[in-house]
Amino acid sequence: MEDGSQSCSIVVFSGDMDKVMAGFIIATSAAAMGMDTTMFFTFWGLKAIQKGTPTGDGLFGKMLSLMNRGGIERIGPSRLNMGGMGRWMFKKMMKQKGVATLPDLRQSAVDLGVKFLACQMSMDVMEITCDDLIPEVQDIVGAATYIASAQQSHITLFI
Amino acid sequence: MEDGSQSCSIVVFSGDMDKVMAGFIIATSAAAMGMDTTMFFTFWGLKAIQKGTPTGDGLFGKMLSLMNRGGIERIGPSRLNMGGMGRWMFKKMMKQKGVATLPDLRQSAVDLGVKFLACQMSMDVMEITCDDLIPEVQDIVGAATYIASAQQSHITLFI
Amino acid sequence: MEDGSQSCSIVVFSGDMDKVMAGFIIATSAAAMGMDTTMFFTFWGLKAIQKGTPTGDGLFGKMLSLMNRGGIERIGPSRLNMGGMGRWMFKKMMKQKGVATLPDLRQSAVDLGVKFLACQMSMDVMEITCDDLIPEVQDIVGAATYIASAQQSHITLFI
Repeated sequence: MEDGSQSCSIVVFSGDMDKVMAGFIIATSAAAMGMDTTMFFTFWGLKAIQKGTPTGDGLFGKMLSLMNRGGIERIGPSRLNMGGMGRWMFKKMMKQKGVATLPDLRQSAVDLGVKFLACQMSMDVMEITCDDLIPEVQDIVGAATYIASAQQSHITLFI
Repeated sequence: MEDGSQSCSIVVFSGDMDKVMAGFIIATSAAAMGMDTTMFFTFWGLKAIQKGTPTGDGLFGKMLSLMNRGGIERIGPSRLNMGGMGRWMFKKMMKQKGVATLPDLRQSAVDLGVKFLACQMSMDVMEITCDDLIPEVQDIVGAATYIASAQQSHITLFI
Repeated sequence: MEDGSQSCSIVVFSGDMDKVMAGFIIATSAAAMGMDTTMFFTFWGLKAIQKGTPTGDGLFGKMLSLMNRGGIERIGPSRLNMGGMGRWMFKKMMKQKGVATLPDLRQSAVDLGVKFLACQMSMDVMEITCDDLIPEVQDIVGAATYIASAQQSHITLFI
């Protein structure tokens, strides 16, 4: 890792469509401008890097998966979701305006070299395994890895 | 722009009264302490710099405007809003305690030289035009402008 | 305070169990890695450093306390709370996985020397007094103190 002013570190805690999108837009822009960019997906943010298959081993994990299924195509906005209507409406509006979809944005991030890291502890708690994540995730890490990276970063965000 | 330690860059993504207020308080404090301060209003945060007139061109834009009318006087807190009761109660409590109102805080930010930038892409998606924003907004920009500014900033926040 | 790369400054605005937990995990990790770490509790985040006794003086303050009682044991997650069921389920899952509880995490933060600061203005508005806070809180401060600390910090987050 080079000079700190060249790095960007984003914690994606939220699993809301609009916030995840903001995260990917910032990450791809930073990477496109030559910044060494890392996204740490934790808690609900893990949904953005899950395959979308059912998860969970024990009762609670299965319940959680049922109520809060991951997968980037399933997530709704933080406001006005209205039982999925909001997600549909936003997708429609974004398409009309020529904005990239969430899966496309995520792919751009990968193509631009954005590093995807997943939080070990929240995966454990939510009973999400390595196999539940998309293969583009580079590593499953603890908070210490995040801190070590954020220490070197000029832009640090929690989304 | 001078030395990075003298700059503060805040993304205002949220449109909740309490979070927008936190954003303005941090921004005015930073500016009062001599920091070169920029606020990037995006997604729901755009409500804080809208005039409050109805917006939207197509059906979805109009619907969005109806359900989520902008304007700094209309927004409610992230919790306990209870159909507007929370907004009224918070305003009442803030007045009792001598805390500046949201419009006053925003004006202070302007007076202290805080730069207001609006996100082009979310304006497009939400069908908000330049004319829907207060004249104090200095520019309508893309994510690259945000990154370029945040790269120079010592304090970077996402609210 | 030493060199900026050695400091971490976290605004805890949210009062949600999961976000507060993320805040404490980041803070303890940073402190454990030798960073000079400060947490600024403001608005709903104050709940994480309240004793949990009823607060408020006037009618609004009492109402707020009733609807939004502080205390780290009472707070629920930002999603799937379902009238307290979510809190219970998360606690259960965290225990099963050997994750530290919120009170334990907070104590670790104290033991590792994380500095707890409370926001004067939000305490005033919410009618929370010094006596309502746990004794580990080191000071009650204004936004200027936050800015002065964040200016020196390499990691700046708003949670």
